[in-house]
Amino acid sequence: MTTSLPVLDVTVTPIAFPDPPLLNSAGVHEPWALRAVVQVHCGDRLVGLGETYGDAPHLALLGRAAGALAGLDVFDLAGLRSRVAAAVGIVDSPDRHGLTGGSSAEKTLARVVSPFEVALLDVQGQAIGRPVHALLGGKIRDKVPYSAYLFYKWAGHPGAAPDEYGEALDPAGIVAQARRLIDRYGFRSIKLKGGVLAPELEIDAIRALRAEFPGLPLRLDPNCAWTVDTSIKVAQETAGLLEYLEDPTAGLAGMAEVAALAPMPLATNMCVVRFADLPEAVARGSVGIVLADHHYWGGLTASAHLATICRTWGMGLSMHSNSHLGISLAAMTHLAAATPNLTYAVDTHLPWQLGTDVVTDPLPFAGGSVTVPDTPGLGVGLDPDALARLHENYLTCGIRERDDTAYRQRFEPGYTRRRPRW
Amino acid sequence: MTTSLPVLDVTVTPIAFPDPPLLNSAGVHEPWALRAVVQVHCGDRLVGLGETYGDAPHLALLGRAAGALAGLDVFDLAGLRSRVAAAVGIVDSPDRHGLTGGSSAEKTLARVVSPFEVALLDVQGQAIGRPVHALLGGKIRDKVPYSAYLFYKWAGHPGAAPDEYGEALDPAGIVAQARRLIDRYGFRSIKLKGGVLAPELEIDAIRALRAEFPGLPLRLDPNCAWTVDTSIKVAQETAGLLEYLEDPTAGLAGMAEVAALAPMPLATNMCVVRFADLPEAVARGSVGIVLADHHYWGGLTASAHLATICRTWGMGLSMHSNSHLGISLAAMTHLAAATPNLTYAVDTHLPWQLGTDVVTDPLPFAGGSVTVPDTPGLGVGLDPDALARLHENYLTCGIRERDDTAYRQRFEPGYTRRRPRW
Repeated sequence: MTTSLPVLDVTVTPIAFPDPPLLNSAGVHEPWALRAVVQVHCGDRLVGLGETYGDAPHLALLGRAAGALAGLDVFDLAGLRSRVAAAVGIVDSPDRHGLTGGSSAEKTLARVVSPFEVALLDVQGQAIGRPVHALLGGKIRDKVPYSAYLFYKWAGHPGAAPDEYGEALDPAGIVAQARRLIDRYGFRSIKLKGGVLAPELEIDAIRALRAEFPGLPLRLDPNCAWTVDTSIKVAQETAGLLEYLEDPTAGLAGMAEVAALAPMPLATNMCVVRFADLPEAVARGSVGIVLADHHYWGGLTASAHLATICRTWGMGLSMHSNSHLGISLAAMTHLAAATPNLTYAVDTHLPWQLGTDVVTDPLPFAGGSVTVPDTPGLGVGLDPDALARLHENYLTCGIRERDDTAYRQRFEPGYTRRRPRW
Repeated sequence: MTTSLPVLDVTVTPIAFPDPPLLNSAGVHEPWALRAVVQVHCGDRLVGLGETYGDAPHLALLGRAAGALAGLDVFDLAGLRSRVAAAVGIVDSPDRHGLTGGSSAEKTLARVVSPFEVALLDVQGQAIGRPVHALLGGKIRDKVPYSAYLFYKWAGHPGAAPDEYGEALDPAGIVAQARRLIDRYGFRSIKLKGGVLAPELEIDAIRALRAEFPGLPLRLDPNCAWTVDTSIKVAQETAGLLEYLEDPTAGLAGMAEVAALAPMPLATNMCVVRFADLPEAVARGSVGIVLADHHYWGGLTASAHLATICRTWGMGLSMHSNSHLGISLAAMTHLAAATPNLTYAVDTHLPWQLGTDVVTDPLPFAGGSVTVPDTPGLGVGLDPDALARLHENYLTCGIRERDDTAYRQRFEPGYTRRRPRW
């Protein structure tokens, strides 16, 4: 360990895995979710893993970055950032789906750095015999609670058989979905992805969840589907029902108007998505809770710095998720384990992947939580057969960029994406 | 390295070293400066070093903390914080000298954690064969610039021979002192410790420095000796002369009044001294530049988080110093090396120690900068003979708590400590 440990080779493998028809304010999930697996090879069977988005423009940037990392010492995270910045240049690569807020060159770079940083931390941890959480300030909890992430959904993709969760388009369907997720995983918090039905129908679903699960915190996330006035109205009608209301409306100014009158804190992963958004958010009082996401905040160490900012300004901290597999789950779990003020259950889409994964030893949910791994690195290993299968999916699925709106329009030609819609 | 690396034993050695009669707004430096050297022993000749204050109340807390660390894995910084917090309890241990702002339980704990955190990072770096800067995000500069730290001073301590720098009580004396420091160390920035003479006399000194060193940035730090009105007047009279004006007046409210009318940014190490001070400082616009100091901000990793906050809010970042030796210089240099937005030359008292040190291989100044060590850990080793000598000084010097005011009163019975004085 007193010798250098250089990166020998970096591979980026795009993958696709089946995804149910989950509805949101932008449309509906396509049959395949895209993702990319980063492997940082350091010789002697030492490999670090990272997981990130798989959309074509992002893949192009990942490829440029990967090509610039040979020879980098695995402990040189500053070198990682400078090499990636040089390789990527100043470029703004937006998310077509628009579910993680506005885009910017700063955010694009952070998004490209992230999976490589996670992979380097994985290698560092393996090399020094310490879990990744030890590299992030140290573990302060042994279990990380996750939330049941509910979606309005179709029974199955059009033309395909219904999936095991079936349809959920009304309060009864949502409650049944929650019951199934909670029975299977033991979740102790519930989040409903809203912005799909008219607000009063979504309030009905929240009321039904409250009646069925009286002890569990509830959250509602309409992804900016509402006007300021609608947001205020919903917030007031759900007084006492919600732990927090997430991104009811777009923008720091609108959020601040809602926050001033809402009886519960507002949370966001759409109006505060990079460090540069924080000063205005604080000055306006736009949000009470920031949902961190290491995938676009620049990695795990940057997310730890975000956590300090939230603690310093008295903002709560929760964690956001897009469709992901077990490498990301491990990274999220290590970060959460080392973040004292991450006091909300973490969002995860993982149950919707119905067992598909790329790791040999997925971290299991028990009682709604993941036990924090104490093995070196991330604590998960790549399954090469699974990776090959999911890459083959990618090659054949025909999807190269997530577009929930266009997919929904194939079945509902009159559907348009509008924000606000109500 | 895949096995644990536990702390076996921790020693805290109080030391004292000769200090010149440097004047400040609280009085004058006593003939001996107190400090404490922390050694974290991990067996197999693996020792981590830390350096901190040596005042008696602080030493008592250090002793409690040191006794709680046996068995701690050196990578477990969260465990360090929780053990120290449990050992120290909720206690507020103020600085008698009052030159680093208000005291609080939060700051007391941060001050006790700091030297142990530095020592653990030193051990970590040695264990993995990496410099400490690699554990702080990575090196982004190869040299860290320091500033010439000028003081009004007596020729020597009363009853003793003049020291080699001699008297400096007027502009000519200050310019001569600057010339000597710059000739010897190559500094490219100048800081004058003010708050000693009437403001117009200190402005004269600044003008004399500007005439003598037209290309070098100048700073003035009266340690809150002035009222708001005096501060505004001095700021306006020194327009164009100062890189920044440091702590002209006390408190976030007063600083904000001055900042609104000052033509240069205000800096502080007195009104923003812990994370809890930042929200109000930002809201009021009290300061443009924060002087970090890992000795009371909780260590190097906490200081790196502070740096992110400064970058995020568009505040500048500089670094504060008290009287210190070579362990602290190494720690400050690693932190500065890994902090992209530390763009000001760092303060250091080290030249005033006139060659006294506890390390075998002090990091040298060349061209005003310290070359960042790339050897494992902090890159400095303890000199056991020097430690024994300086500890003997401590035992015999009779000083147990820094008190610049009482010392000055011994020679000027009418002297009182007043803030503001002008």
